[in-house]
Amino acid sequence: MERNLLLKIEYDGSEFFGWQRQPGVRTVQGTLEEALSCVLGTQVQIQGTSRTDAGVHALAQHASLCGTFGIPTERIAQAVNNRLAGKSGGIGKIGRVGDVRILSVNEMPTAFHARFSSLGKRYRYLIGNSRETDIFRRRYCYQVTEPLDAEAMRAAARCFVGTHDFAAFQTSGGTPRQTTVRTIYSLTINRQGDDLLLEVTGDGFLYNMVRILTGTLVEVGLGRRNPGEMNGILESCDRQEAGHTAPPQGLYLAEVFYTEDEIRRAQQENENQKQDTM
Amino acid sequence: MERNLLLKIEYDGSEFFGWQRQPGVRTVQGTLEEALSCVLGTQVQIQGTSRTDAGVHALAQHASLCGTFGIPTERIAQAVNNRLAGKSGGIGKIGRVGDVRILSVNEMPTAFHARFSSLGKRYRYLIGNSRETDIFRRRYCYQVTEPLDAEAMRAAARCFVGTHDFAAFQTSGGTPRQTTVRTIYSLTINRQGDDLLLEVTGDGFLYNMVRILTGTLVEVGLGRRNPGEMNGILESCDRQEAGHTAPPQGLYLAEVFYTEDEIRRAQQENENQKQDTM
Repeated sequence: MERNLLLKIEYDGSEFFGWQRQPGVRTVQGTLEEALSCVLGTQVQIQGTSRTDAGVHALAQHASLCGTFGIPTERIAQAVNNRLAGKSGGIGKIGRVGDVRILSVNEMPTAFHARFSSLGKRYRYLIGNSRETDIFRRRYCYQVTEPLDAEAMRAAARCFVGTHDFAAFQTSGGTPRQTTVRTIYSLTINRQGDDLLLEVTGDGFLYNMVRILTGTLVEVGLGRRNPGEMNGILESCDRQEAGHTAPPQGLYLAEVFYTEDEIRRAQQENENQKQDTM
Repeated sequence: MERNLLLKIEYDGSEFFGWQRQPGVRTVQGTLEEALSCVLGTQVQIQGTSRTDAGVHALAQHASLCGTFGIPTERIAQAVNNRLAGKSGGIGKIGRVGDVRILSVNEMPTAFHARFSSLGKRYRYLIGNSRETDIFRRRYCYQVTEPLDAEAMRAAARCFVGTHDFAAFQTSGGTPRQTTVRTIYSLTINRQGDDLLLEVTGDGFLYNMVRILTGTLVEVGLGRRNPGEMNGILESCDRQEAGHTAPPQGLYLAEVFYTEDEIRRAQQENENQKQDTM
């Protein structure tokens, strides 16, 4: 019987040329498909929810895998992860950790699709805001050593929540889309020690949208832009009006939402942030 | 006038084939010499204190650089670091962080040498001891997911403090040494959240000595070896008797000592740990 499996996947994007399979380079999709094909004994392809760029990480990428396999569903993750785990390590399996792994595998109804059934996604963007840069974190956050005004950034962020045309916040060259209108359910900015954690939940995101939103908000945080400019940037629909594209290493695909309940909870978080900071 | 400069250097060893210059591969020494030669306008070589292996990090490697240069000493670090900083980043210089950088440059007396004047070194070995591995830390610690008995490890560690023949704790193939006798001034093991931080200070270390000491202590922590076996391993002078070589990514060259005072302080720390845990 054909199974329709949903994989939940975590990866460190540092050493991948992004998600999407491409000949001759190491990609997350290609690496996973190769390991899955070995374990399942048949050539398989997977369909990811988000095509993350080179250097972008995922705490919870999702992907669909359809086919007829002998191996029980609950044994797939472990078998694939053993294959993906790095060779460097200590004794036995201790210390063997790969840079991509499957967190869970679930059987879904036939009509389910990791990407098309998704109602929304959440991305995190991590900004290191210490006075000194940290070479050991350079792959995992955007290090901004001048102080950021988080309150000004939150004021600017509120302009983006809701349904807007985000044409000014996309890089050309991505997959062509029918519309550049998107809905952001929540956009919160929280200080965690010397870090700023930006979390944005929306029904979908244009190419580089989270990174351009973040770059623009960083410019607000540095005092180079005013929160009041945000509506004008949206209305311009002009990429030149928005800020710089924040680097990929701070970006994490954090969650994929398949139910209305999850979306409602995301909206609620946004309200909580508003109450917290106003 | 010829200057004798002491460089203090930090690096993430993940993407280097170790410290020592080798043709055709990226090494820390080679990368630094190239950047220094550009900045100083003349081909230079540096002499490091420790030849760290591939994947090993340094918080404070030291290196000697001798020569006659036009550039003021205090401007060398910034000029070299700008050259070494990665290209990925945000606006201007924000977010540009390389994986190696010079922390300081100091002028030393003519007879001083980064390696031969050193009285001792301190290494850190970081063990992640959570139940779950973390893919984002796989380059920066040894992840042991079974619980480690830190008290048993400390009991074993005490056997190594002092002057011993550490022949059982070296990998063959390193630089030939006249003697395998070394003095360990302190060896402490401290829990920091879910991590175990091992710090060892000694007058010198044999090839892979810290990693083999750590691997042996991990086996003690897992209950596979008894602290009482340590003296027998030392006496055997046989590599086969000691434990596995812990992986390179947990190891950090943390300090290099050039004064007796620093050595005395290291010995004191060891006493503090004894009082703390007995």
